[in-house]
Amino acid sequence: MLHTIKKIGVLTSGGDAPGMNAAIRSVVRTCAFHDIKCYGIYRGYEGMIDGDFVEMDARSVKGIINKGGTILKSARSKEFRTKEGRQVAYDQLKKAGIDAFVVIGGDGSFTGAMVFNQEFDFPVMGIPGTIDNDIFGTTHTLGYDTALNTVVEVIDKIRDTASSHNRLFFIEVMGRDVGHIALNVGVGAGAEEILIPEEDLGLDRLLESLRRSKASGKSSSIVVVAEGDKIGKSVFELKDYVEENMSEYEVRVSVLGHMQRGGSPSCFDRVLASRMGVKAVESLLIGKSNYMVGIKNDMMDLTPFDQAVKGKSKINMELLRVSDIMTV
Amino acid sequence: MLHTIKKIGVLTSGGDAPGMNAAIRSVVRTCAFHDIKCYGIYRGYEGMIDGDFVEMDARSVKGIINKGGTILKSARSKEFRTKEGRQVAYDQLKKAGIDAFVVIGGDGSFTGAMVFNQEFDFPVMGIPGTIDNDIFGTTHTLGYDTALNTVVEVIDKIRDTASSHNRLFFIEVMGRDVGHIALNVGVGAGAEEILIPEEDLGLDRLLESLRRSKASGKSSSIVVVAEGDKIGKSVFELKDYVEENMSEYEVRVSVLGHMQRGGSPSCFDRVLASRMGVKAVESLLIGKSNYMVGIKNDMMDLTPFDQAVKGKSKINMELLRVSDIMTV
Amino acid sequence: MLHTIKKIGVLTSGGDAPGMNAAIRSVVRTCAFHDIKCYGIYRGYEGMIDGDFVEMDARSVKGIINKGGTILKSARSKEFRTKEGRQVAYDQLKKAGIDAFVVIGGDGSFTGAMVFNQEFDFPVMGIPGTIDNDIFGTTHTLGYDTALNTVVEVIDKIRDTASSHNRLFFIEVMGRDVGHIALNVGVGAGAEEILIPEEDLGLDRLLESLRRSKASGKSSSIVVVAEGDKIGKSVFELKDYVEENMSEYEVRVSVLGHMQRGGSPSCFDRVLASRMGVKAVESLLIGKSNYMVGIKNDMMDLTPFDQAVKGKSKINMELLRVSDIMTV
Amino acid sequence: MLHTIKKIGVLTSGGDAPGMNAAIRSVVRTCAFHDIKCYGIYRGYEGMIDGDFVEMDARSVKGIINKGGTILKSARSKEFRTKEGRQVAYDQLKKAGIDAFVVIGGDGSFTGAMVFNQEFDFPVMGIPGTIDNDIFGTTHTLGYDTALNTVVEVIDKIRDTASSHNRLFFIEVMGRDVGHIALNVGVGAGAEEILIPEEDLGLDRLLESLRRSKASGKSSSIVVVAEGDKIGKSVFELKDYVEENMSEYEVRVSVLGHMQRGGSPSCFDRVLASRMGVKAVESLLIGKSNYMVGIKNDMMDLTPFDQAVKGKSKINMELLRVSDIMTV
Repeated sequence: MLHTIKKIGVLTSGGDAPGMNAAIRSVVRTCAFHDIKCYGIYRGYEGMIDGDFVEMDARSVKGIINKGGTILKSARSKEFRTKEGRQVAYDQLKKAGIDAFVVIGGDGSFTGAMVFNQEFDFPVMGIPGTIDNDIFGTTHTLGYDTALNTVVEVIDKIRDTASSHNRLFFIEVMGRDVGHIALNVGVGAGAEEILIPEEDLGLDRLLESLRRSKASGKSSSIVVVAEGDKIGKSVFELKDYVEENMSEYEVRVSVLGHMQRGGSPSCFDRVLASRMGVKAVESLLIGKSNYMVGIKNDMMDLTPFDQAVKGKSKINMELLRVSDIMTV
Repeated sequence: MLHTIKKIGVLTSGGDAPGMNAAIRSVVRTCAFHDIKCYGIYRGYEGMIDGDFVEMDARSVKGIINKGGTILKSARSKEFRTKEGRQVAYDQLKKAGIDAFVVIGGDGSFTGAMVFNQEFDFPVMGIPGTIDNDIFGTTHTLGYDTALNTVVEVIDKIRDTASSHNRLFFIEVMGRDVGHIALNVGVGAGAEEILIPEEDLGLDRLLESLRRSKASGKSSSIVVVAEGDKIGKSVFELKDYVEENMSEYEVRVSVLGHMQRGGSPSCFDRVLASRMGVKAVESLLIGKSNYMVGIKNDMMDLTPFDQAVKGKSKINMELLRVSDIMTV
Repeated sequence: MLHTIKKIGVLTSGGDAPGMNAAIRSVVRTCAFHDIKCYGIYRGYEGMIDGDFVEMDARSVKGIINKGGTILKSARSKEFRTKEGRQVAYDQLKKAGIDAFVVIGGDGSFTGAMVFNQEFDFPVMGIPGTIDNDIFGTTHTLGYDTALNTVVEVIDKIRDTASSHNRLFFIEVMGRDVGHIALNVGVGAGAEEILIPEEDLGLDRLLESLRRSKASGKSSSIVVVAEGDKIGKSVFELKDYVEENMSEYEVRVSVLGHMQRGGSPSCFDRVLASRMGVKAVESLLIGKSNYMVGIKNDMMDLTPFDQAVKGKSKINMELLRVSDIMTV
Repeated sequence: MLHTIKKIGVLTSGGDAPGMNAAIRSVVRTCAFHDIKCYGIYRGYEGMIDGDFVEMDARSVKGIINKGGTILKSARSKEFRTKEGRQVAYDQLKKAGIDAFVVIGGDGSFTGAMVFNQEFDFPVMGIPGTIDNDIFGTTHTLGYDTALNTVVEVIDKIRDTASSHNRLFFIEVMGRDVGHIALNVGVGAGAEEILIPEEDLGLDRLLESLRRSKASGKSSSIVVVAEGDKIGKSVFELKDYVEENMSEYEVRVSVLGHMQRGGSPSCFDRVLASRMGVKAVESLLIGKSNYMVGIKNDMMDLTPFDQAVKGKSKINMELLRVSDIMTV
């Protein structure tokens, strides 16, 4: 083993996601379990550059497993994208005696860690934390399962109104590049149509589907639209389009926005975070570096950072078919 | 007593609200209790004109006390605003033998009922169902308490993200004419500032409040804005304004929209709906007409429709002061 | 004014209740608003005797408005019931320069404060915090509204099972001396029968009610039983009794227990706590002492401690009638 | 293909679980999609024997995807365990022209289906619906994910009280034969110790763990106990044992009971149910019979009934280790 690790830093980076706190807790306690010191790094790479560290022991992380957000806070750092910024960060880590870190975040955060590792031969390990589930090398990212539940609960509420008033709702959910959230909440909330970044089903199909839905006796309809929907129209444009072409529908729009990112993590996300934290720390301790921890077929797994950031997370096309059948 | 009532109709009208189903259930079961026949009228006054009635007994309403929306559906009816439309509605009611009705809705619905009562001397009673709590003659409308809980839960989620990223959020909540929701969720969710239709606190005060908040060490802020905020700017304009004047803040916007109207009613709304249904039916049975049932000081009360629709529901100004103190 | 107050202590005492943290926050921030120092007293009177105090400023209470339990912790203190114990507590307060305190708790806690006030002429003020709503001088205690929602949500879940299996459930809810919770959740969850400490409706009536319910076509039934039910039988004894006398029912029992006391407070409880904290501190500042803050007809009010602890909180008998009608 | 299937029956059997309604909906709509008639069979095998069938079309199952329990109701049938009973059931199915059925339930229900298939060469397919996740051939049964979330939310509430009062709680959760729920909620809710049917960790270890926990500065503790815990003591006996041996702890007990089975299904369970319904019907249509649909590595899979009922569902022992590390 090249590095004998005695102090591990942990940071959260990029957009926050439910389960990040549970992962921080797990990293800190796994360090305590192995008699390794652990330092929290505040505000992502920004705080690394500023040397904004705090020592954490097992008790520092009590009562956070069920809290949304991240107690270490998060930020995007422009400075860390520069060689100079990273050098300052390295100096800060060395000064504090930190000799490895675990970064909880998305692919941007992993790219940063990978570059940092290459430049300074510094041991790093990643834990995927983002509600979008858009990372290669893990079937689930932290926060994804929670976000699915948050969104279906909100759509259930909107459906109360939709069906009371015989209305059509376009509901925009997160997912700029991948349709995981849209596809699953669409099936889970019984949406009539699901628009995702991966497929351009076309506006004609949408109209036809709505007409068929109306004809079959449905009095209200929900269409779930991922932010990055391939058709390329915003929910507001879709509303206008449908109202022009199907005057029988009263159309409403809802953009769910940031609430999708918050909330107490689901049991699945808490357990996943706990497992990933253990795996990340113990992988560093046996000399591994430059990997992202993932879950595959309910087992912990490691994926090299370069594959994780280059790879593509694929949606399950079976679900599109299930959705079609469900809206018969 | 002028009318001996044997068949009572019940309808929901205007925007739906949690607790409407519990109120329908209560009307139906109170009729059953007094051996009166009860008819559900679908789609508000629209369905009254169409004669879209269904007989309901005690078992027809099982399993709905905890459901959002309205099983009778709701609609706004242009036709009912015409003398001709109301004549058709009257003929339909007579044909079906319905000799009184209870309308669950807001002030527009009550105005309709009042006019109808005047024209045909037809016994009517109202139950206030709207999340806005903007009706005179009752301290609480059905759905208001539920909406408060729905909104604070959503803001709690957004705060997870806000505080993880040191951001400022403008959150638009319902309330075109009154600030009840904004004021209560603002205090309940710990908002730094609350903008309501009743008061123009001014943009300067907003900036100053945010600056003081920042200076006092707060890293994130939530500003709750009622739809009908007196300043007259949308949350998007407010975002632009603050970003221009306080570059230290990263501002985000969230428009909560329709989800505020759905969801399973709170215990308070279920109990209130049950009490109001009993009161409405039993008031009709003792010959009362043209009143809205309300709650005042935890007791059932009747307010004549003309007062209910003309009066103003006042916000509790004490809460504005409490909010100021809480954001010290 | 006899006392010029410069330092106020705040403690939580007795069983915890949702909203206690929001009340602590309000007391602390109202002190900050008036430039008064505020000290948190840990573990109720126990910590007062131990001098377990910590200075709190506006930032100390951030992020707690939506948390259940109490960050100051709570305990019951035998020692404070002795003259000697109270003398030690007094000495500790004097030593720390604390010249008034606000106690958040139930009637036992208020009795302690009242005696302490008499012995040492020490300014004290109370905030009613208990889910039972059993305190005279306020229509709502902190935590009560939240507990109602918690319980109806649980009963909704149990009803899913009850109606899938045609079963009868006896569900025990809190309420040793008063039936507020049982009565309201009973109506709110659509229970067939409600057993409370205030009325001995008799076992015969229970059987008859269940028989009528069965005959009317209901396939499942929920009976809500307050801990201190007047009939004097536990839910387990009731189960046995009904199974012996009505073999057609498969009976199950659920004792809800401590979960009723936890959870994030409802919007109502958060707002109430905020208002009560302001009122408690500002009452002390104008020289009032020995009162409990309460809410009556949506306005803040003060009740002398001796009345608060001697008086009786009455249930609304109208609700029993509403329940009877709803189970027609 | 021996059977050309034109009418498919669907029933729910055994204990109800969240997601059963979503599965019924999926079976019904998949039939509609393939122009097959579908019949709902009420009250499990009991209703099959009674010929309690109802034809269902796509619209019959609207609005149920998010409802707990089962609209078809469930029951355990003694009669179906006899050859005579099954003969009557077969005659009823034939009379109604039903030529295959899908049973949603646990291993007892599958055993019944398997025997029925052998006796009458009748096409049957199973969907695993039980919160216990104790069925071989699928990593997840319907309702399991929902139950995990329900339980961690309740434990979160109990922890509010536990930590406010420095108490130890023993919480009994479902799991007579397997520890899936206990293990996952134990990790997810941050329990100090987890007692499961698979391992007898011994009472000494429990005491030691609690002592270590106390020594490490923890002021409250949660111990999660599966119903079928190997130590063989009830939560009440455990309480007595600990109170005798560790007088420093005030111990409380909570038996969660039936509420674990109800509630609106999680997004995961709704999607899983939708997929399983499609797979079950389409498997019947291509001539398969006597299988249980399952999910493995996020793909639909079939397991012969005899393996499903004989096999054992194994817990993930990695989680026990994760739990140990988390309670350092």
